[in-house]
Amino acid sequence: MPPVDPGAIRCLGILAGSGALPRSVAEACAGRGVDVFVVDLGGAAGGWIAGFTHERVALGQVGRVMALLSREGCEAVTMAGGVVRPPLSSLRFDRQGLALLPRLARLFRQGDDGLLSGVADIFEEHGFPVIGPDAFLPRAIAPAGSIVGTVSDTNEIETARAILDALSAFDIGQAVVVAQGRCLAVEAAEGTGAMLDRVAALRAATGETGGVLVKMPKRGQDARIDRPAIGPDTVRAAAAAGLDGIAVEAGGVFMLDDARLRRLAVETGLFLHGFEP
Amino acid sequence: MPPVDPGAIRCLGILAGSGALPRSVAEACAGRGVDVFVVDLGGAAGGWIAGFTHERVALGQVGRVMALLSREGCEAVTMAGGVVRPPLSSLRFDRQGLALLPRLARLFRQGDDGLLSGVADIFEEHGFPVIGPDAFLPRAIAPAGSIVGTVSDTNEIETARAILDALSAFDIGQAVVVAQGRCLAVEAAEGTGAMLDRVAALRAATGETGGVLVKMPKRGQDARIDRPAIGPDTVRAAAAAGLDGIAVEAGGVFMLDDARLRRLAVETGLFLHGFEP
Repeated sequence: MPPVDPGAIRCLGILAGSGALPRSVAEACAGRGVDVFVVDLGGAAGGWIAGFTHERVALGQVGRVMALLSREGCEAVTMAGGVVRPPLSSLRFDRQGLALLPRLARLFRQGDDGLLSGVADIFEEHGFPVIGPDAFLPRAIAPAGSIVGTVSDTNEIETARAILDALSAFDIGQAVVVAQGRCLAVEAAEGTGAMLDRVAALRAATGETGGVLVKMPKRGQDARIDRPAIGPDTVRAAAAAGLDGIAVEAGGVFMLDDARLRRLAVETGLFLHGFEP
Repeated sequence: MPPVDPGAIRCLGILAGSGALPRSVAEACAGRGVDVFVVDLGGAAGGWIAGFTHERVALGQVGRVMALLSREGCEAVTMAGGVVRPPLSSLRFDRQGLALLPRLARLFRQGDDGLLSGVADIFEEHGFPVIGPDAFLPRAIAPAGSIVGTVSDTNEIETARAILDALSAFDIGQAVVVAQGRCLAVEAAEGTGAMLDRVAALRAATGETGGVLVKMPKRGQDARIDRPAIGPDTVRAAAAAGLDGIAVEAGGVFMLDDARLRRLAVETGLFLHGFEP
């Protein structure tokens, strides 16, 4: 599928999961006069969709979602927000979904990036180019350099990046916690919040503090897929875990609810830093 | 320090942390007529030490522990069992411990293997060769091949081994959970039990089952250090997480409380498998 100019799209379909990102994309588009059609994925999106044309679909209703996107005149789609990966056996498939079942079964055996890339392919085969949500929110992407405060220990960040690089080929998580040269936690299917809660529990036992959360996209991550994100909740959880700060790849990680995120970092004394890819 | 023949030792010092391993070493030695002196590390060892000559030491009492080992005529020491890594600042150092403080501070910035290797060096510099506990418990080490039941999916085991290989250089954990080709959890400082509990919680949300726990030593792990271990608790937690089984490196992982471990695996329907290094 040839590349699409995000600036030329007149109607965008937003496949909306949970979290602040889908709403931010919708509002940014509306602010530029772009029509938005929100596909609420299994009810994950939340109440904000009332302000936009929207339909709720069950995961597995492949034919229905394609028909809705056509009906609304969507020229492209973006996938944004979180969806709890359901067991394949729990999905309610329509006829087109059932036809894709063998392929979906293979995709479900992959990590999140593999699964989402495969889903993006399916939309493109149905004539809807898939554009990463960062194209609509350029200012929500982490900048390079100090964002709040000053990095406490660049060696910790380098160690964390090396670990994430080593894991990159396996489509696992996108975040680790390193403190004083030692890796305390590696994120896999549980998500960044649960990983930080675990570090907080470890620290409650040992009394130690310090260290950094590092988050970055996988090497060669499909550009059509959500970038990893941090938000105010991430800052709160990192502070509760006694960390010194958060470092993310500049240009590669969303900063959701940016103003609140920065304010919370200042209030909790955490640094925020964007490192060059 | 020249290699020591474990079979020729007449008195062994056991630096004993928590768990079943230190007691197993002590009983195996006593059964062969070898004198045992148990150093209870900060009270972690438990009540079983009453049956052996023992002393409790606080972590940081370097001079005292060396003097005790000399007094009891220990010809070598073994380090066995778990110790919760305390903050360096909480340690009660004696004079010899204080003299080692800069070196210990550097060791505390490493992963568990780096720290334990450095501690083993300190014992050897004081004239006590350090021998891995597996030398005294050859039959407690996992054999090659099927131990209980049959492996459900060798691809899952291969994926898990590749992830652990990639992480090996970073001295992180020694275990991962892979299910249907996807890595659900990576162990770091939290330990295998906490990692399995996390997978059980994920599964409670999704209803999925299947997958394997893979555990193995790091590449090039210092032979003086504890091998990783599984025990009845590991089997129980793996069953609660809905896994199909547990695979460990043959010759590289302890099977603690072997008979109960195997019985529990049979009862819970889990396979146990030893793969060739």
